[in-house]
Amino acid sequence: MIKRRVSRPVRIGTVTVGGDAPVSVQSMTKTDTRNIKATVDQIKELTDCGCEIIRVAIPDLEAADAIQSIKKGISIPLIADIHFDHRLALQALKKGADGLRLNPGNIRDKEHIKKVVLAAKTRQIPIRIGVNFGSLPPGASSELPITEHMVNIAMEQVKLLESLDFDLIKIALKAFDVPTTIEAYRLIADRMPYPLHLGITESGLPQTGIIRSAVGIGILLHDGIGDTLRVSLSAHPREEVAAGFEILKSLNIREHGPVLVSCPSCGRTEADIIALAETVSAYLRRVKKPIKVAVMGCVVNGPGEARDADVGIACGKGRGVLFKKGEVVRTVEEHEFLEAIIREIQDIMDSA
Amino acid sequence: MIKRRVSRPVRIGTVTVGGDAPVSVQSMTKTDTRNIKATVDQIKELTDCGCEIIRVAIPDLEAADAIQSIKKGISIPLIADIHFDHRLALQALKKGADGLRLNPGNIRDKEHIKKVVLAAKTRQIPIRIGVNFGSLPPGASSELPITEHMVNIAMEQVKLLESLDFDLIKIALKAFDVPTTIEAYRLIADRMPYPLHLGITESGLPQTGIIRSAVGIGILLHDGIGDTLRVSLSAHPREEVAAGFEILKSLNIREHGPVLVSCPSCGRTEADIIALAETVSAYLRRVKKPIKVAVMGCVVNGPGEARDADVGIACGKGRGVLFKKGEVVRTVEEHEFLEAIIREIQDIMDSA
Repeated sequence: MIKRRVSRPVRIGTVTVGGDAPVSVQSMTKTDTRNIKATVDQIKELTDCGCEIIRVAIPDLEAADAIQSIKKGISIPLIADIHFDHRLALQALKKGADGLRLNPGNIRDKEHIKKVVLAAKTRQIPIRIGVNFGSLPPGASSELPITEHMVNIAMEQVKLLESLDFDLIKIALKAFDVPTTIEAYRLIADRMPYPLHLGITESGLPQTGIIRSAVGIGILLHDGIGDTLRVSLSAHPREEVAAGFEILKSLNIREHGPVLVSCPSCGRTEADIIALAETVSAYLRRVKKPIKVAVMGCVVNGPGEARDADVGIACGKGRGVLFKKGEVVRTVEEHEFLEAIIREIQDIMDSA
Repeated sequence: MIKRRVSRPVRIGTVTVGGDAPVSVQSMTKTDTRNIKATVDQIKELTDCGCEIIRVAIPDLEAADAIQSIKKGISIPLIADIHFDHRLALQALKKGADGLRLNPGNIRDKEHIKKVVLAAKTRQIPIRIGVNFGSLPPGASSELPITEHMVNIAMEQVKLLESLDFDLIKIALKAFDVPTTIEAYRLIADRMPYPLHLGITESGLPQTGIIRSAVGIGILLHDGIGDTLRVSLSAHPREEVAAGFEILKSLNIREHGPVLVSCPSCGRTEADIIALAETVSAYLRRVKKPIKVAVMGCVVNGPGEARDADVGIACGKGRGVLFKKGEVVRTVEEHEFLEAIIREIQDIMDSA
């Protein structure tokens, strides 16, 4: 149902971003990049959660130098996040970064940018132009609406890269304000052929940041805009990766592990549906397949949803009806609910 | 920036839904409705969280009778959720329900519906036609795409109500599948003038259900569609209310308490930003005003975001720059970060 914007693909190490490549999920390490062991450990944990591209902050030369050792310990592409000092970008390239992120808000000297672009071109390493509301430079367009200003800042730098015959470009235009972010991405999506990296910046703690990110990134993805994404949260980055995949799953853009349908429960419910759903969810953490399981509390929507899932249960007073692949399996007693669901899930896993 | 669809307003007790009324946030009790004390206590707790309309399940006559006593203990409008048996709707009306939700999937007898509509008309009580993917009836349109079938089911019942000269109507078309839900609401938004109640049904546990709901409800709201909403979660209903307001806040549709901007932190950060953000967030729980606070970890986006907030701090190594209403207040030492932020928040609160 979603008609995806056609973008010109680039390769970040082994991962293609843009074109018809799957929308990839990124995160960023929160360790001190100079601490090679801690950084590698965090990247490995994120890789286990499905993270497909990792970005690391490069605040100084020691951090740039660490890239070489970090790369040896990890299996996903690494992007160096550069601000202020173009020499850090040059060093990151030398040390094997698979991609660069430059902030046009704080690397303004054209000669410096040219040096980085020529070095990236030699190595065929893509550059993301990462504009951020919190670090916009002043400029000719700063009197314009904020979204136009953000787009202009990005376009100026894109043109500089293009003038150097460099087109391994991605663009991001992040703001904390969700409508601003949406508007900025929509504007540039029509003006540029490059892949877009989506995100809501500084979106805060998970309880609020996940919602801001889901709304903003979700609206753009449903428009067909976006080739890779990072959910920024003030939390462990594994929460960023999980949220990223959930956003993609909610729009049927990617599969990533199981889907649990469960009812909110209400005054009609006669079993402890929330506890049952939580236990089934905990069990499903070990399942990698995109199996759909429904835990439902009554006869209103229960049979309909349970029938629509791979495994489902519609619970009533003291007993429930178990479904598998749309067919009734049998009636089960309340004390067997969990065991019966798990047995059917296991059965589907084994027969796959 | 959002152009809202114009709908015909209805009144649920003291709350207007539709027209230019604020998009209201609803929830549903998870207590046994017949347990009057537990139900009233839960509704009061939800009212304290900002819940504006409450729905209660009416599975039997005893639950319908309980409405009278529940209403005496609460201050927000109450909607009776009816399935299968139209007599429960008649009794709920008698006992003072401010609104009815009927499911056209399981109350099909036209004579029964007519009785309910005439009783609602006498009392000028609105009816929500709540179509749900999990409880669709078979019918002439069941060969059509699922969204068209859902819309047809709703339209058939709307026409029946209109034929009885009844127009105090709201409509909901909920599915677990987010693109299906969006498509169904978009279709009916163009065909009917009535207010729309938004939701993603059976969306599951908070970690996934909040994301599904934020994406689906967010996309519709950003389209200008939606007059009231309920986030359905397998969790305590206070989480439904909080998520509902966060979705509205993310699109600048409603204000509801403070907004906390905070950075995800990265290898550049030299203070424990996540812990500081969590502590500030806990403090802000007692603040009702829509104050914007920014907790930022470095000089890249820190000053820009901190300057944009009512109170902000851009933290560096051992010290940070404190901002208030866009101006630098002073430099503070790391051990004073929290105290300094709280003092400025308090100062703004006191001077308001």
